[in-house]
Amino acid sequence: MHKEMDVVSALQFSRSDVEKLIAIAEELRRRVENGEKLELAKGRILFTAFFEPSTRTRLSFQFAMAKLGGNVIDLGPEEVTSRAKGESPEDTLRTVDSYDPDIIVVRHREPGFAARAAEICKAPVVNAGDGYNEHPTQALLDVYTIWRSLGRIDGVTVGVMGDLKYGRTISSLSYILSNFRDVTIYFISPQALRPREEVLKILDQRRTRYELLEKPDDAMEKLDILYVTRLQKERMNPEEYERLKGSYIITYEYLSRFKKIPMIMHPLPRVWELTTDVDVLPQAIYFEQAKNGLYMRMALIKIILGV
Amino acid sequence: MHKEMDVVSALQFSRSDVEKLIAIAEELRRRVENGEKLELAKGRILFTAFFEPSTRTRLSFQFAMAKLGGNVIDLGPEEVTSRAKGESPEDTLRTVDSYDPDIIVVRHREPGFAARAAEICKAPVVNAGDGYNEHPTQALLDVYTIWRSLGRIDGVTVGVMGDLKYGRTISSLSYILSNFRDVTIYFISPQALRPREEVLKILDQRRTRYELLEKPDDAMEKLDILYVTRLQKERMNPEEYERLKGSYIITYEYLSRFKKIPMIMHPLPRVWELTTDVDVLPQAIYFEQAKNGLYMRMALIKIILGV
Amino acid sequence: MHKEMDVVSALQFSRSDVEKLIAIAEELRRRVENGEKLELAKGRILFTAFFEPSTRTRLSFQFAMAKLGGNVIDLGPEEVTSRAKGESPEDTLRTVDSYDPDIIVVRHREPGFAARAAEICKAPVVNAGDGYNEHPTQALLDVYTIWRSLGRIDGVTVGVMGDLKYGRTISSLSYILSNFRDVTIYFISPQALRPREEVLKILDQRRTRYELLEKPDDAMEKLDILYVTRLQKERMNPEEYERLKGSYIITYEYLSRFKKIPMIMHPLPRVWELTTDVDVLPQAIYFEQAKNGLYMRMALIKIILGV
Repeated sequence: MHKEMDVVSALQFSRSDVEKLIAIAEELRRRVENGEKLELAKGRILFTAFFEPSTRTRLSFQFAMAKLGGNVIDLGPEEVTSRAKGESPEDTLRTVDSYDPDIIVVRHREPGFAARAAEICKAPVVNAGDGYNEHPTQALLDVYTIWRSLGRIDGVTVGVMGDLKYGRTISSLSYILSNFRDVTIYFISPQALRPREEVLKILDQRRTRYELLEKPDDAMEKLDILYVTRLQKERMNPEEYERLKGSYIITYEYLSRFKKIPMIMHPLPRVWELTTDVDVLPQAIYFEQAKNGLYMRMALIKIILGV
Repeated sequence: MHKEMDVVSALQFSRSDVEKLIAIAEELRRRVENGEKLELAKGRILFTAFFEPSTRTRLSFQFAMAKLGGNVIDLGPEEVTSRAKGESPEDTLRTVDSYDPDIIVVRHREPGFAARAAEICKAPVVNAGDGYNEHPTQALLDVYTIWRSLGRIDGVTVGVMGDLKYGRTISSLSYILSNFRDVTIYFISPQALRPREEVLKILDQRRTRYELLEKPDDAMEKLDILYVTRLQKERMNPEEYERLKGSYIITYEYLSRFKKIPMIMHPLPRVWELTTDVDVLPQAIYFEQAKNGLYMRMALIKIILGV
Repeated sequence: MHKEMDVVSALQFSRSDVEKLIAIAEELRRRVENGEKLELAKGRILFTAFFEPSTRTRLSFQFAMAKLGGNVIDLGPEEVTSRAKGESPEDTLRTVDSYDPDIIVVRHREPGFAARAAEICKAPVVNAGDGYNEHPTQALLDVYTIWRSLGRIDGVTVGVMGDLKYGRTISSLSYILSNFRDVTIYFISPQALRPREEVLKILDQRRTRYELLEKPDDAMEKLDILYVTRLQKERMNPEEYERLKGSYIITYEYLSRFKKIPMIMHPLPRVWELTTDVDVLPQAIYFEQAKNGLYMRMALIKIILGV
């Protein structure tokens, strides 16, 4: 059992939670873009503990807190900490929690780690990725991006593509989307990398339409959004990776074959699955998507701090 | 010769210094727990230079400075600095000192390094561990923890256990305790890892009672505090480590054998010498001890800055 | 084409730009030394992205921003970021740029990288070293140091020594010096490590006197400044390094042979090319030089932010 202000799973968020977060993100964006220096989080401390690498999530939380006038303290890389001496992540978190941070943001390769951290810590814990399981703040910025691109989330048709079994952004995104009406999700992946049963089961329960495809071609012209993800090399065996890596590459040339090109999203980092020649298209909104992460995380922090 | 505000050795601290620091730590704790946002260190910079790994010491200094409203700048891990190009730590510190930090906190594997840093730098230098030699701020938080648990330091009976020869927390703690009346210390260690002569000599001079034991069993029921430390693998040869590592493990089962269980302290990180099943005992105060580090370090910073 | 406030090359700076920066650096120094807590950069964010190791440049920018009351966010070492997952530095910068930093400071081993970063990013980009090419902020603090030591830059005679081909500080320093009247530069290096043609060509165009020498001895007594640089091991093949490393060592004994000892500068870190026994000489101004970096970078930030 975790605490009220923990953000452990995308399943915690109702439709109205999401709408409220979007409204706050939009308001904070306006204030920042007007050059206002916010002090909402003055004297507050956000602690980031990334037991796995991160650029966007870590930095966007740091920027978000700085733009709210607060402080960030980072655990630091493994070799500078007592993890090098064999300390468990649980002991590390319990210790830092005793230093009274206002929020703890945690990423760990183990599914369920964030939930356990939330039990251990008095401070609110935000899941910034727990293995293949979930990445709820990514999903929030994803639907915020859909809303900003299309003006709505109800009725949207989204194709998500890549490694859907081990990609934690996919489960969280599906959960958030399932709050909205008339959403259709095309899951495009090799058979071996289809979404996990637990994810599909929730979509079934919530009566969200979805289809499982092996190639993007068939769905492309029906899509409002094509959400590309990478085949996470570190989660596959080397053979599987070599066999599949050629199959899911989105290029300018490929997209040009279709009459209607959907908005292209990607959680980034991209490696080879989305080529840089796509960047010139007006539909390439993945850097906008990253930017939206700043404002969505500011909104989350604002709510968690109650300021 | 170092400067007045340097904190190089626990021997610098008199009884009244310790009492004053405890009083300031308690006052700062009350203010922080009341939600007050302090600005005592506003515009001030604390620089942390850890040439060896650290979690608690580094992070608690960072939290302490943040909670006083000040800034922290960290040297960063070895591979991102000019140490990677072969620069001496002395040149690194002299350079940073020229940037005018208000305090420099330094850890290095070499005994005596902090004293040398204090000579080199104009800024006050705080020793956060110099090899096997000393770790005075740890000792200050340790006696603060004893005071908070027992309401006094005079008359306390403390068992310190583990690698007492290379464990730097032990010498500093002994020095601070030797300021108080009727203290008894049981040093519990393999013969080869007894406290260094220089430490025992100072206790002799100050007429602090101590006894050297090989097993914790005999002293256990006399103790107010059992201070467990790990056998620091990196300071032992592999054979010695393998031979001894089984002998000094504190478990729930082990403690249950005794009629009276003392307060259990540990500087952390623990590896195997203190099992997690002990955490449920009311006597397990090592996470409280870590927390006390925050307030003691705030108190130290406050005094050093003269604010 | 980069943007007005980018600092990509030392060639951007006119004589009056340099004089203006020195005046601002001096004013900020006075205010800091008077204990004034500046808030000029309050609420502003400087982002540091060092794709190569750095101590002085990174830390002096951090201190500079802190002393101006602003925030610093650092990319972090490679293994904690998505670079570990194969992300290009361009994607990393584009992402961070979308988080709306006020300044981006970038170092990369590739010549021309800073210019490319400046094109990609909306935020002003400061070149903190792009391979062997340039290091303009180092050159600014170097001429500031010359001005503080000699009271003038016009008419100065400077010997620069070491690896002049791959040493990026040399080209930038030469460009800045070439703005001033009656400057003479002695380039002292092995033939294979003479300054690149592009550098000498600009000095020719600007009619700055220079001479190419193989040994420092001949010029020593004519010099106002001897600027020592290391033979950057990582930029040479191992054989070349072994053959040359003995030839360019400045020691106390060596300097004592001359009737007049010039001011000794060094961008640091030094390894073996400048021995620590030189530090006692009044002419040893390399730690002053490092300190000047703080104030020059504060001045640069102030101008870039327009505060």
